[in-house]
Amino acid sequence: MDFKLNDEQELFVSGIRDLMAKENWENYFAECDENSQYPERFVKELADMGIDSLLLPEEYDGFNEGMVTLTAIWEELGRLGAPTYVLYQLPGIATVLRHGNQAQIDKIMAFRGTGKQMWNSAITEPSAGSDVGSLLTTYKRKDGKIYLTGSKCFITSAAGTPYIVVMAKDADSEKPIFTEWFVDMSKPGIKLGKLPKLGLKMDSCCELQFDELELEESDMFGEEGNGFLRVKEEFDSERFLVALTNYGAAYCAFEDAAKYANQRVQFGEAIGRYQLIQEKFAHMAIKLNSMKNMVYEAAWKCDNGVMTSGDSAMCKFYCANAGFEVIDSAMQVLGGYAIAGEHRISRMWRDIRVDRVSGGSDEMQILTLGRSVLKQYK
Amino acid sequence: MDFKLNDEQELFVSGIRDLMAKENWENYFAECDENSQYPERFVKELADMGIDSLLLPEEYDGFNEGMVTLTAIWEELGRLGAPTYVLYQLPGIATVLRHGNQAQIDKIMAFRGTGKQMWNSAITEPSAGSDVGSLLTTYKRKDGKIYLTGSKCFITSAAGTPYIVVMAKDADSEKPIFTEWFVDMSKPGIKLGKLPKLGLKMDSCCELQFDELELEESDMFGEEGNGFLRVKEEFDSERFLVALTNYGAAYCAFEDAAKYANQRVQFGEAIGRYQLIQEKFAHMAIKLNSMKNMVYEAAWKCDNGVMTSGDSAMCKFYCANAGFEVIDSAMQVLGGYAIAGEHRISRMWRDIRVDRVSGGSDEMQILTLGRSVLKQYK
Amino acid sequence: MDFKLNDEQELFVSGIRDLMAKENWENYFAECDENSQYPERFVKELADMGIDSLLLPEEYDGFNEGMVTLTAIWEELGRLGAPTYVLYQLPGIATVLRHGNQAQIDKIMAFRGTGKQMWNSAITEPSAGSDVGSLLTTYKRKDGKIYLTGSKCFITSAAGTPYIVVMAKDADSEKPIFTEWFVDMSKPGIKLGKLPKLGLKMDSCCELQFDELELEESDMFGEEGNGFLRVKEEFDSERFLVALTNYGAAYCAFEDAAKYANQRVQFGEAIGRYQLIQEKFAHMAIKLNSMKNMVYEAAWKCDNGVMTSGDSAMCKFYCANAGFEVIDSAMQVLGGYAIAGEHRISRMWRDIRVDRVSGGSDEMQILTLGRSVLKQYK
Amino acid sequence: MDFKLNDEQELFVSGIRDLMAKENWENYFAECDENSQYPERFVKELADMGIDSLLLPEEYDGFNEGMVTLTAIWEELGRLGAPTYVLYQLPGIATVLRHGNQAQIDKIMAFRGTGKQMWNSAITEPSAGSDVGSLLTTYKRKDGKIYLTGSKCFITSAAGTPYIVVMAKDADSEKPIFTEWFVDMSKPGIKLGKLPKLGLKMDSCCELQFDELELEESDMFGEEGNGFLRVKEEFDSERFLVALTNYGAAYCAFEDAAKYANQRVQFGEAIGRYQLIQEKFAHMAIKLNSMKNMVYEAAWKCDNGVMTSGDSAMCKFYCANAGFEVIDSAMQVLGGYAIAGEHRISRMWRDIRVDRVSGGSDEMQILTLGRSVLKQYK
Ligand SMILES: Cc1cc2nc3c(=O)[nH]c(=O)nc-3n(C[C@H](O)[C@H](O)[C@H](O)COP(=O)(O)OP(=O)(O)OC[C@H]3O[C@@H](n4cnc5c(N)ncnc54)[C@H](O)[C@@H]3O)c2cc1C
Ligand SMILES: Cc1cc2nc3c(=O)[nH]c(=O)nc-3n(C[C@H](O)[C@H](O)[C@H](O)COP(=O)(O)OP(=O)(O)OC[C@H]3O[C@@H](n4cnc5c(N)ncnc54)[C@H](O)[C@@H]3O)c2cc1C
Ligand SMILES: Cc1cc2nc3c(=O)[nH]c(=O)nc-3n(C[C@H](O)[C@H](O)[C@H](O)COP(=O)(O)OP(=O)(O)OC[C@H]3O[C@@H](n4cnc5c(N)ncnc54)[C@H](O)[C@@H]3O)c2cc1C
Ligand SMILES: Cc1cc2nc3c(=O)[nH]c(=O)nc-3n(C[C@H](O)[C@H](O)[C@H](O)COP(=O)(O)OP(=O)(O)OC[C@H]3O[C@@H](n4cnc5c(N)ncnc54)[C@H](O)[C@@H]3O)c2cc1C
Repeated sequence: MDFKLNDEQELFVSGIRDLMAKENWENYFAECDENSQYPERFVKELADMGIDSLLLPEEYDGFNEGMVTLTAIWEELGRLGAPTYVLYQLPGIATVLRHGNQAQIDKIMAFRGTGKQMWNSAITEPSAGSDVGSLLTTYKRKDGKIYLTGSKCFITSAAGTPYIVVMAKDADSEKPIFTEWFVDMSKPGIKLGKLPKLGLKMDSCCELQFDELELEESDMFGEEGNGFLRVKEEFDSERFLVALTNYGAAYCAFEDAAKYANQRVQFGEAIGRYQLIQEKFAHMAIKLNSMKNMVYEAAWKCDNGVMTSGDSAMCKFYCANAGFEVIDSAMQVLGGYAIAGEHRISRMWRDIRVDRVSGGSDEMQILTLGRSVLKQYK
Repeated sequence: MDFKLNDEQELFVSGIRDLMAKENWENYFAECDENSQYPERFVKELADMGIDSLLLPEEYDGFNEGMVTLTAIWEELGRLGAPTYVLYQLPGIATVLRHGNQAQIDKIMAFRGTGKQMWNSAITEPSAGSDVGSLLTTYKRKDGKIYLTGSKCFITSAAGTPYIVVMAKDADSEKPIFTEWFVDMSKPGIKLGKLPKLGLKMDSCCELQFDELELEESDMFGEEGNGFLRVKEEFDSERFLVALTNYGAAYCAFEDAAKYANQRVQFGEAIGRYQLIQEKFAHMAIKLNSMKNMVYEAAWKCDNGVMTSGDSAMCKFYCANAGFEVIDSAMQVLGGYAIAGEHRISRMWRDIRVDRVSGGSDEMQILTLGRSVLKQYK
Repeated sequence: MDFKLNDEQELFVSGIRDLMAKENWENYFAECDENSQYPERFVKELADMGIDSLLLPEEYDGFNEGMVTLTAIWEELGRLGAPTYVLYQLPGIATVLRHGNQAQIDKIMAFRGTGKQMWNSAITEPSAGSDVGSLLTTYKRKDGKIYLTGSKCFITSAAGTPYIVVMAKDADSEKPIFTEWFVDMSKPGIKLGKLPKLGLKMDSCCELQFDELELEESDMFGEEGNGFLRVKEEFDSERFLVALTNYGAAYCAFEDAAKYANQRVQFGEAIGRYQLIQEKFAHMAIKLNSMKNMVYEAAWKCDNGVMTSGDSAMCKFYCANAGFEVIDSAMQVLGGYAIAGEHRISRMWRDIRVDRVSGGSDEMQILTLGRSVLKQYK
Repeated sequence: MDFKLNDEQELFVSGIRDLMAKENWENYFAECDENSQYPERFVKELADMGIDSLLLPEEYDGFNEGMVTLTAIWEELGRLGAPTYVLYQLPGIATVLRHGNQAQIDKIMAFRGTGKQMWNSAITEPSAGSDVGSLLTTYKRKDGKIYLTGSKCFITSAAGTPYIVVMAKDADSEKPIFTEWFVDMSKPGIKLGKLPKLGLKMDSCCELQFDELELEESDMFGEEGNGFLRVKEEFDSERFLVALTNYGAAYCAFEDAAKYANQRVQFGEAIGRYQLIQEKFAHMAIKLNSMKNMVYEAAWKCDNGVMTSGDSAMCKFYCANAGFEVIDSAMQVLGGYAIAGEHRISRMWRDIRVDRVSGGSDEMQILTLGRSVLKQYK
């Protein structure tokens, strides 16, 4: 058992601390959120530090680091108020390396170091949310071409990424064959509508419509019929990242509130001296401890090849919920300043609520986790 | 024991139902919220029905109804999606009748039937939130005039009401004398700054600065030195109204979710057929039952002259929290449509959070209630 | 709306108060609990007051009172520490009047006024708990007689009642026909084993085995094939009574704790002056208010013929759980004296836990309630 | 970061597994609990394995292991149903080595390997519970002797240990001097009364009365005036052990329930296939994960000399509460079999409740933790 980071990991963390101290990033983040704008300037700085190469193998000049290192970096970013939720694209490079063909890899690798948004995956449809298997978008082969038809909804980043990987069903097969397509969003035949959102506003959320969109065989992403398997694998690490982001935001809110509670005086005492406030911090500390250990343990399992779907479901469900509770308590400690004014906590409070639905609802995580637990005792 | 409304009350309720059915008010409310605009057109319609005369005695051509009737009306308004939180002004007429002088009464009564905002009370200051007794705004007599100096914050409606009743301390007295002043907001010497808010955006929230604002003795509201006593009394009914509003909003969210759960199909079944969804409705129903009975009982006590500060603290604390939980569960049932899109539930979700701070924080309600309970066993 | 008892009801309540003041009943209850003994002497006193005739119609010289009156009586009994859970037999007379034949009615009416245990219903079997439909006990007709065979478990009171109404399946029918039998427990062919229990120890809990127990046609209880329907009806009022009992116990624990909190001094102050303790009382008061109104409203609905299965499921689930939370908090306030010593609270704490399983598990109530709620919005 | 045990630790764990498999210990434990009897035969087996030498330094032929190893052993014992709460005596040897004089060390070391109870500490008094500083027991010097007078209550093990270390105040000093005395319980002048208990019944709980009990200077335990400092240090590790015990019990209950849920069929399906049951296991798994990591991290901190009072307060509060919730959920899964019958879960359910008071109440842990958290942000 060992509960501390190694020196290299500490170095990354201190690099993050330096970056975050360079300017009052909060002004920038607040502005991006207000304007529903991707914080590209900030992500570029991370890219300059090489963070987008963190998980890449050495042959690509990557750091070849694992999930524990990434966890330490995301934790520090979150703690210091950075919106790590826009960084889902970074580990995305690794996915394309694993599943993409050379042309796709080249397209994505070209973005390395730029901080720009690259791609995202589009699965959800108006009538296929939790039940992705019921999706209706189809691809149809004709004269050596592929034609994609259908609509997607709630697709994150789609207004900003040049590529979207679209899940579709073979129109010509009786039994369901699900295949993903690497779609260049500048093509004609794509209609895109932006949706308003409760939170996570620095990233877009869109409806997409494909009307006989013409594709090539070479646009296939991964292998034919392998769509759900590919996505299922990815989901585990996506969910883990959501958890990380939630944990980091909660940490930030907690520290804001702790500093405030020591300073804010009412009835002649710092409010931190009242039992009801101390109680809140006791509960927050417990939840932060649980989240911290849970995500580090899952990261460690991931690095050792033993992370399960149950583990990532646990991380996502717990961190989205405990994280919300921590942020909500912090908000309560901050009183009127959190509710009416420009404190970042009200943004974080809206943001984290999204993650109890997006990326797989709480209920789906609960069922995944519950079943995986019970299976061990069969 | 009797748990039903009388015929007259039912008549009011059915009037509300008719009003709400007249048009798709939600469009109007959404627009008002988006633009931080008071829904005057809607409140005017209520005024046309005489709702602003509900509590007024017969000598003022009022309905002379009590809190149970008001509760039934607010419940129905809330259930059908109306923002009852902007109606705090209505019972406000009764307050002025009780405490104002004739000139003040005339000023306020002039607004009757118009649906316009009238007045609100300004107590809170940057360093005096829960601890109102530490406020620093003073009034000073000089040459037959009164000069008001200080700053207030988080003042609801202040951008829209012609009058604000300001609590201040006698600058010339050793021991604290708190007196309220009925301030005409069009006077010079008042600086007003609008604050952004997490929710309840159809009403404004402002900072105010008074710099030697000149007043007359006749601007005094109530009696000199009686400020806190006046406010304390009023708080009980204000808190009760907050509770009513929260209960109504929760009811609305619950019905939206119930209808959706019966229709939305995933995995081949209406989601309302899954145990985890049924469980949510069981918990929501319990909370709604508890809220309903709690507010009606408090209203009944009020009408019988036996409502205590403990009762209203209980209503406010419980309804703000249980109401939030109901709305949050409803949101979860609605899934992506609640988070990304234009469903009213995300507005209600933000709105209700405000009331765990505004009007006296949760913690203050808990302490008021806890102490009042314990006192009965001394 | 009216939230108070009428004069007659108040009279009953004050009668109960007098009875409870007659002696230190707690000594007797503690002794009965310790020895797993039915508190017959106490129930006899209630019978002397005519409480066992409360619900009986006038033609039987009953009081012809309704559930609101019964609620007021049970509330006061509970509040003053009486184990109302042993009184399930009292409303049991009314059941027999409704469903029994004359001979059965006579047998049960003979116990009126005695305070003795009369009868109970045996449905549950080792493999048929929540799923009562899967029960295996059968009745078989041969030569004008009926032979009952099978085993029952968890049967309350069975060690003390002269009669048990046993649910069984027609052995000769293809499709399931469930019928109840009014069994005289003194007959040969019945094996009875007492089970240890976590709580509610003043009443027994038994396993029963029937080995070709010979019965007459006249032992049929209600109509053939009507077993489940009869029981379903009864369940609603049984569950309501469980809720009442739980509410009363919680009230008692709360009062014990409130008095203690005002007296117990630690760190120089009554512990009731500390915020964490006040917070507990705030939460307890809210739960008691919710329980009180919920049971009275259900009782009122019952008296008006509109109580549903959803209502009684809500009462049982909520009161068993909220009641437990109240008792648990009260225990915490009492500290070591509640844990090590002879305070009645540790008995109440064990008792109430039973009711989250017995009489239909929490989960079954949740599903019943959730479904009934959703049905209203179809 | 490393989340696994080393080989030596695994060896200890597998030794425990072997011991637990040797016989059906549950029969023995149930009997000990029923008879309020210390399970000496079981503890002797642990002593035979050398567990009581685990923490002792090599110069005493100890294993010189740390808290992580102890945690691994306690976890496995708990998981397999052993009452680790009776093992508080084992780490007790280390305390005496640290603070006792040679005679006291010799007395205690004589018990090594025997499995017998050795000593415990008596601080609490009827009027001094959470507020230990208000204790009234005094020691008075006269003619070279010391005379101890006062009463203690809630003293664990006191009916079974040969020695009790009693905290008392110098009767002759103005300012409070607290000193501990190593009392041989066979001396005259000690009155002992056994108290009934809600749980943890394999160990006794007693009232003690000392009436001018004569002691020698050499009976002083530690240094004069150092009583509270000594105890404060010890409390941290005592609280940590309580947490360990609670975690282990929760683990055991969880496994019992998981196995049952996979086997118990109702409505034609294993109950583990129903969503409400899966949800319970999801929550249980999260709590177990949090407890596990929390106690291991605290143990690791302890071994590295950085465990704080905040850490141990967190462990005790969280594990007693989350542990209770896990056991309560497990109980619910087991249904009637947990409530009426002889399943060990009802014992565990009573046991763990004790630890929310004993060893420092929840509220004291919350305040300690909350304050220690806030101090970091001053
Ligand atoms: C902000 C945002 C960003 C998103 N980004 C993306 C993206 O980039 N790409 C993408 O493909 N998708 C994306 N999604 C879609 C997201 O994955 C879905 O919203 C989510 O899976 C839930 O689907 P739904 O909203 O259709 O809800 P539904 O599946 O309709 O669920 C409604 C409710 O029913 C519950 N429920 C459903 N089935 C069951 C069951 N069997 N048992 C019990 N309860 C059940 C759900 O838990 C939920 O509470 C995003 C969504 C949001 C809100
Ligand atoms: C949207 C909005 C509208 C408002 N409208 C008005 C208005 O119209 N007129 C008006 O006068 N005011 C108004 N207020 C002010 C409101 O009444 C205060 O915000 C509220 O009383 C809390 O004060 P605070 O924000 O300064 O928090 P603080 O009092 O500083 O409290 C911060 C935290 O400390 C806690 N706390 C404080 N003291 C204690 C204690 N002794 N023990 C335990 N915990 C404690 C609080 O509960 C809270 O969690 C409004 C506020 C908001 C947010
Ligand atoms: C003290 C006591 C007294 C009793 N007295 C009587 C009596 O007098 N007469 C009588 O007939 N019976 C009596 N019972 C039996 C009682 O009604 C049953 O215990 C109860 O209905 C639950 O059945 P079970 O214990 O077999 O649990 P099970 O039905 O096996 O349930 C085990 C767990 O699975 C859950 N579960 C079961 N099915 C589902 C599902 N479909 N979905 C989700 N969860 C599910 C349950 O909620 C529970 O958590 C008594 C029980 C007790 C403990
Ligand atoms: C089974 C058992 C075994 C025990 N074994 C031992 C032992 O071996 N040796 C020993 O010395 N003692 C022992 N104790 C005593 C134990 O340490 C005390 O019970 C405990 O510290 C609480 O004290 P109390 O019971 O007097 O409760 P009190 O201190 O009277 O507390 C009553 C309630 O008030 C709360 N409270 C008290 N002060 C405050 C405050 N300032 N703010 C907020 N809330 C407050 C408490 O949290 C509790 O909820 C044992 C107790 C039990 C039950």
